[in-house]
Amino acid sequence: MIQFPKPDVDQFFRTYTITNFAVSKDEKKVIFSCNLNGKQNLWAIDFPNQFPYLFAQVDQQCNFIKFDQENRFVLAGFDKDGDENYQIYALPFEGGKPQPLITGEKNDKYFFAELTKDGERLYYVTSKNNPQFLNIHRYDLKTNEDQILQKGEGAPTFMAALAPDESSFVTISSLANTYQLANVVINGEKHLLTPNKEEVHTVSDPVYTSETMIYFVTNYGEEYSYIASYDLSSREFNEVLKIEAESVTTLKWNKTLNTFYIVTEKGVTDYLYSYSLATEEVTIHSIPTDIIEQLTITESGSVFLLGRSATIPFNIFRLKEENNWEQLTTNNVLGISSQQMVEPDVVKYKSFDGMEIEALHFKAKSEVDNGYTIFWPHGGPQAAERKMFRAMFQCFLNRGYSIFAPNFRGSTGYGATFTKLVEGDWGEGPRLDCVHGIQWLFDQKVTSPEKLFVVGGSYGGYMALLLAGRHADLFKATVDIFGVSNLFTFLNSVPEHWKPIMKRWLGDAEIDKERLKKDSPITYLETMTNPMLVIQGANDPRVVKEESDQIVAALEKNGVDVEYLVLDDEGHGFSKKHNEIAVYEKMLEFLARHQ
Amino acid sequence: MIQFPKPDVDQFFRTYTITNFAVSKDEKKVIFSCNLNGKQNLWAIDFPNQFPYLFAQVDQQCNFIKFDQENRFVLAGFDKDGDENYQIYALPFEGGKPQPLITGEKNDKYFFAELTKDGERLYYVTSKNNPQFLNIHRYDLKTNEDQILQKGEGAPTFMAALAPDESSFVTISSLANTYQLANVVINGEKHLLTPNKEEVHTVSDPVYTSETMIYFVTNYGEEYSYIASYDLSSREFNEVLKIEAESVTTLKWNKTLNTFYIVTEKGVTDYLYSYSLATEEVTIHSIPTDIIEQLTITESGSVFLLGRSATIPFNIFRLKEENNWEQLTTNNVLGISSQQMVEPDVVKYKSFDGMEIEALHFKAKSEVDNGYTIFWPHGGPQAAERKMFRAMFQCFLNRGYSIFAPNFRGSTGYGATFTKLVEGDWGEGPRLDCVHGIQWLFDQKVTSPEKLFVVGGSYGGYMALLLAGRHADLFKATVDIFGVSNLFTFLNSVPEHWKPIMKRWLGDAEIDKERLKKDSPITYLETMTNPMLVIQGANDPRVVKEESDQIVAALEKNGVDVEYLVLDDEGHGFSKKHNEIAVYEKMLEFLARHQ
Repeated sequence: MIQFPKPDVDQFFRTYTITNFAVSKDEKKVIFSCNLNGKQNLWAIDFPNQFPYLFAQVDQQCNFIKFDQENRFVLAGFDKDGDENYQIYALPFEGGKPQPLITGEKNDKYFFAELTKDGERLYYVTSKNNPQFLNIHRYDLKTNEDQILQKGEGAPTFMAALAPDESSFVTISSLANTYQLANVVINGEKHLLTPNKEEVHTVSDPVYTSETMIYFVTNYGEEYSYIASYDLSSREFNEVLKIEAESVTTLKWNKTLNTFYIVTEKGVTDYLYSYSLATEEVTIHSIPTDIIEQLTITESGSVFLLGRSATIPFNIFRLKEENNWEQLTTNNVLGISSQQMVEPDVVKYKSFDGMEIEALHFKAKSEVDNGYTIFWPHGGPQAAERKMFRAMFQCFLNRGYSIFAPNFRGSTGYGATFTKLVEGDWGEGPRLDCVHGIQWLFDQKVTSPEKLFVVGGSYGGYMALLLAGRHADLFKATVDIFGVSNLFTFLNSVPEHWKPIMKRWLGDAEIDKERLKKDSPITYLETMTNPMLVIQGANDPRVVKEESDQIVAALEKNGVDVEYLVLDDEGHGFSKKHNEIAVYEKMLEFLARHQ
Repeated sequence: MIQFPKPDVDQFFRTYTITNFAVSKDEKKVIFSCNLNGKQNLWAIDFPNQFPYLFAQVDQQCNFIKFDQENRFVLAGFDKDGDENYQIYALPFEGGKPQPLITGEKNDKYFFAELTKDGERLYYVTSKNNPQFLNIHRYDLKTNEDQILQKGEGAPTFMAALAPDESSFVTISSLANTYQLANVVINGEKHLLTPNKEEVHTVSDPVYTSETMIYFVTNYGEEYSYIASYDLSSREFNEVLKIEAESVTTLKWNKTLNTFYIVTEKGVTDYLYSYSLATEEVTIHSIPTDIIEQLTITESGSVFLLGRSATIPFNIFRLKEENNWEQLTTNNVLGISSQQMVEPDVVKYKSFDGMEIEALHFKAKSEVDNGYTIFWPHGGPQAAERKMFRAMFQCFLNRGYSIFAPNFRGSTGYGATFTKLVEGDWGEGPRLDCVHGIQWLFDQKVTSPEKLFVVGGSYGGYMALLLAGRHADLFKATVDIFGVSNLFTFLNSVPEHWKPIMKRWLGDAEIDKERLKKDSPITYLETMTNPMLVIQGANDPRVVKEESDQIVAALEKNGVDVEYLVLDDEGHGFSKKHNEIAVYEKMLEFLARHQ
């Protein structure tokens, strides 16, 4: 009777991003940060009514939400237009206007660490006076007394856990994404939680199960992260639980049930387990999404998670009973069901040195397929493209583009060795993995150079630029979203607290001069001839605007067909709905024009 | 411990407007129009999950939502940036992009009348080819055949009900707001539902309980509207149910229960009754809000309502069991409970001729009271200021202003005679009622000329201007929101289908020349000396921008302190959140500056 046309581009971008959430102690209120009304704001649900209400109109990104245990106030961290200089605010329990609590100059960062159960003492980490290594403070909300507990040295150092009686705390120092050392600090005295600090390994998610027992996640001596413990009485490190070929990413402790909840990652998917300390029984739980973004276990043992899948946008779920997850939010693609979207195939191909690379291959449905493929090198680079909803992907798929996203060397989820392969080698191994991925697409007759685009953001933008400079013959046009164009200027412009890790991660401007030159896209301007679209957030603190400015200027000078879109009120990502839609409409228009 | 300051102005405007809703036949889905994400869009709830999702992103006002009974599609009407030229669109049942269904030129209006149960025939009313009197059409969704059923003559004529077998329909012709005649049309032959068309009366809400029985609301021969019936077989008119000193405003029929649901108004509040046809029993029901904006009874007998109170913004409720309403939406003032807001006192005062005038008096709480009062003549004028949430009122109250809003002669809710008193007398009786209201405030020592402002919109803006021109000594400054400044230009610029009723309502430019001159604010330019703020929506179809332009130009010429704010993408009201906040911040700033 009434016929409806295929969905509009902007329907895909009417989904929203839920970045994080918190549950009140009585489990009657959930607060979450999301751009439901166009910009990132705090929303709340008061059960049993699930209809959300605006809790704080801030129009800014939020990095944490913490309830006072007695429901007197809520703490949250907000930055300014994407600058990632998060500061700490207090809000009335009923919602309202955030009041500055732990804040400073525009460029200072304040990271929430812990709020004591009585709501009286706040532990936090700040870049103030120590921008590279950070300091740990305690602030007394009753007396307004602020005390510095530890000055960071040698590496950016965060506070990660606090003993129940506040007699000790755990710090994590980041020497690299793949090299993190944890110390328990007792009266200013530090004890390493792992046996040897010279061994390159990571530690995360420390939890105190008692004053003297700390459990944590580490890959000390292993490829995949597992659960270990440290006994403060005996000073003993012990391996507790390993899961074959899966890396533990999250560890949550529930005292009531005497049980841990564990999230693991394996390539492109996550898994959820529980582990009873009493019975040592490990149980795997079904989960409603392929990826778990946040897991929260309440004091009573209720399980909440924020997750997404390739065809399911960010949603919050509550476990009602075993295998029965109640979806609390309804974040859909406007008018399009998950079944109408595309689940990726997980494929593997061999790279130049025989190494196996896993990739996601999203195939446009035959009724819309336009024959073109988008090659998507992910950002990070120590991250991965996983089965997670991206409005951009599903929109492009609906418009007929297929997408190929390889987890080149350096990606997470395939063991520590694999992740480390990008360190000190940004432009060779990972690039060749991409080139071999493209070759695989040609061999499989998926696409041809005339029908291939490269699109990437952040490190993926860097890779897109590098491929454009060194392999322009392999594809038709490039979209670079806040990508690094020059590794020398990039080294100088990263946030201060990144600088200590840059040497291991990327290299030294003097010692590695030749390699950094070889691996900088801007070195290959002469052969960077394909049409290009460059997109940049003006406030981006990670890849500063100068990175895009210089490559655009240079390409323009060379007469290359280059377009440049700058978002004045965005950082490293697009948090505002109107910007997001403008960016992706521009990209689609660019791709269509270069078919 | 943590102290929070008083709420910010903009918190009050973070509430949203829900204009209307519809429930699917299976009662599993509710769709409603609201500006939750900043502009008016359609949102949906799929029970049991109450979390709403975006159903259509249109950024436009909606005048109706109608479900196909077999859940194949949804119909809705949207205008363009407030121009009130609503046209009819179809949407997929899952939501998506509205497709034009019954649409035409930008200036054509298409009013939905009925969709048959099989979803195959759509009855509608259009201004196309008959802008003053309107035509009634039937459109066949299967064959796309469009048939004109009746051409309007003499008065704008709407279709208000359709017989179950489509053998007849009821039309309502508007001779005035207080003079509406209903006819049942059988094979082109018309029968008046009430005994005498010369008698000035109204008819509304006709419902067929069978092919031959029509119930409706009328005030034929009475001050207050009641329920009457018309029997098509016997051609008999009968009075059915009167409720003492209350006016029936809404009549809904439930076949399953053989019961009517009835909304009545009495001054500033609404009431809900049911009336069983079998037992003739009348039951009054408790309701969750003082005002009922929409009442929907589903086929199974479920009761849904959209309502508001002075301290409760627009919300949708569902009756779970007697006296137990479940609130489906959570539309709050950000961080402020109803208890923190102000409930008005209902006061009465005597006017110049002894007539009693009822008014709402909102008193600022003593801890914030700034001693100033805002006098608010309502719009309409054949409407009333009632116990209904206005973000503006509660915001002004929170800022310390008290508000006084009289239901001057011409207001609804006090009987037909009272309502008619404004007809042919816009500027004398109602104005003197306002002046006596102001005098009452002085007599009661509530305020003084130095501490009084007049703020009004639409007819209220007209009254504000008229008071400014003729009684400038009674108050300090004026805010005119899209008010009529010149009754002669106004007569020419109203929507075409209003023109037939203008003579009775306001007057004739020739015959009533002297009176219209006397009652036009622009006549009193010389004495219009108080500072003034004028606010106007550029697309306003009721009070066109010319009304504000001319008074602003004239006042500027006279050297009066006048400010002018024009909203480019609004009509007769502010539907977009950012405009609404800008308008009220401007008003507060203006009032503060003129204290």
